[in-house]
Amino acid sequence: MAVRAGRFLAACRRQPVHPPPVWVMRQAGRYLPEYLRVREQAGSFLALCRNPELAAEVTLQPIRRFGLDAAIVFSDILQPLTCLGVQFEFSEEGGPRLPSPLKTPRQWARLSACTNSSDAALVAETVARVRAALPEDVALIAFCGAPWTLASYLIEGATSREHAHAKAALWEHPRELEALLELLAETMAGYLETLVRAGADAVQVFDSWAGTLAAPLYRDFAAPAVARLMQRLASAALPRILYAGGASHLLPVLADIPCEVVGVDWRVPLSAAARALPGRAIQGNLDPAALLASPPTVRRATRGMMAEAPPAGWIANLGHGILPDTPVDSVHVFLETIREAA
Amino acid sequence: MAVRAGRFLAACRRQPVHPPPVWVMRQAGRYLPEYLRVREQAGSFLALCRNPELAAEVTLQPIRRFGLDAAIVFSDILQPLTCLGVQFEFSEEGGPRLPSPLKTPRQWARLSACTNSSDAALVAETVARVRAALPEDVALIAFCGAPWTLASYLIEGATSREHAHAKAALWEHPRELEALLELLAETMAGYLETLVRAGADAVQVFDSWAGTLAAPLYRDFAAPAVARLMQRLASAALPRILYAGGASHLLPVLADIPCEVVGVDWRVPLSAAARALPGRAIQGNLDPAALLASPPTVRRATRGMMAEAPPAGWIANLGHGILPDTPVDSVHVFLETIREAA
Repeated sequence: MAVRAGRFLAACRRQPVHPPPVWVMRQAGRYLPEYLRVREQAGSFLALCRNPELAAEVTLQPIRRFGLDAAIVFSDILQPLTCLGVQFEFSEEGGPRLPSPLKTPRQWARLSACTNSSDAALVAETVARVRAALPEDVALIAFCGAPWTLASYLIEGATSREHAHAKAALWEHPRELEALLELLAETMAGYLETLVRAGADAVQVFDSWAGTLAAPLYRDFAAPAVARLMQRLASAALPRILYAGGASHLLPVLADIPCEVVGVDWRVPLSAAARALPGRAIQGNLDPAALLASPPTVRRATRGMMAEAPPAGWIANLGHGILPDTPVDSVHVFLETIREAA
Repeated sequence: MAVRAGRFLAACRRQPVHPPPVWVMRQAGRYLPEYLRVREQAGSFLALCRNPELAAEVTLQPIRRFGLDAAIVFSDILQPLTCLGVQFEFSEEGGPRLPSPLKTPRQWARLSACTNSSDAALVAETVARVRAALPEDVALIAFCGAPWTLASYLIEGATSREHAHAKAALWEHPRELEALLELLAETMAGYLETLVRAGADAVQVFDSWAGTLAAPLYRDFAAPAVARLMQRLASAALPRILYAGGASHLLPVLADIPCEVVGVDWRVPLSAAARALPGRAIQGNLDPAALLASPPTVRRATRGMMAEAPPAGWIANLGHGILPDTPVDSVHVFLETIREAA
């Protein structure tokens, strides 16, 4: 393993790395002019996700432009749901939509895992292409959604503000929803195993909507499913990253989930995350909104984040995905500020 | 003061009350068939807010149906912005929209407070009508948005998921945004004073989007403005309720804001809120999504909330506004379960 993949992996193992490794959630995407050109060529977001050649190209774009320590395979968290036969669409404005949301336990029970799907095969091909083209010293991250976050998509049928029907289902049909979460955990584990075989160096599980649940519900339902998914991946012996959004009230529960790295948002100071999550590396956590400000402000906000970071076991990142109207210059200032930390 | 206003006010003063007083955030609204009839008569949501006779009627409807311990005047948090000359619209689906969002410090500086507006006068008339018609033993709550929550509306121009431009403004133009928050605090204080003179028995300040800010930003910008607003209302000697959404990471900051009651959502166990907020009564906090489940589940979830409640100084409520597709029966089960606590 060469120097820079070593930097990312060393930080995941909580070894001191100066300056800290850094990448940016949603680093390939709408704020980059070179992305928009490829996106137009692909025809639609979903067509781009399903085109290994173009998906590999946009995965590599931010690495070329910014020299980041990790690439993350360009794909969507709903793609592995095709392993369960679930279909979805993307509208230009409204994001993902399931034409047939699965609202009842009877509908969940009809789902069953297949070993693979065309989407999984396509994303695996993207991984292989990226790994072949990527400098050896840059790590490649494969990702999936966490079972609770995916269950909310399946039940609500779209991105939801309240997640009300998914949460009501947790109370109303606890056993059946537990079975759904377990099926999702097994399916995501199989999907990530495929991507690891194709060449991914690390995996990240996005529990973007963790924070919508009270701690007892997260502990009893969402966390066991994430733990199962993480356990299945233990034998791969690579860094397992859990990203949990809005999770300041869930830190004691997260501390019990097997993984090497926990990603948090700006609501949790990095120092508090490091204290609450002994034995884990921490990833994050600048508020992406800070990158909409001017360069001196970006620098100041980034330094504020750095002041809270643990001395070892920190991977610098945003606390959530980069916003579409972020100026490219802000990313440069964010990275320069972190790299000056040496 | 008669028995039941006494029950609500006694709980605000942290005296033991059995069973605890209860009301429901957004208790007048879309889930009630009698509301939908009046709403249709008014023509639009905003026309209803601006019609004291009909607004009083819908304020009273949930009191008649459920016998709650408090009524909350039917109005919208954007109405007092008309005191600053700000105009807004409501679309049927997308919620409030400002035709001209105020994105720059220059635009904020042009705002200035007038002593009153037609909206404030109309809501005051609603308050007076409700107070005259309300049983003496039911308290009447007037409310406004907190300065940070209103500043986000002014800057974003609509309900926002990310509040990115409002947050970027906090970093980029701290002094100018501080002045805007102060102006909003003074304007809201004047508005609530008008409603108290008209007959309100308590006030609630909704910082619905408190939780979008990291604790240092909330402490340095949002909290001082709420504190100023609360201080202005101290001389009225009535309960001041602060509702803070998603605020599990903000409890130490909330503890320094002068008020009698803090409302929290389901992410904060009531017991943790009571410990973190000494000297305050606590209001909340059932997840409104629980009311979408069946009666036995509503009962179980409500009992779970009650098990965490402090022995005195608790006003039972939801942790956020009731959802539009809530069955009316769920509200009955929620209330019965709380009332069985005696």
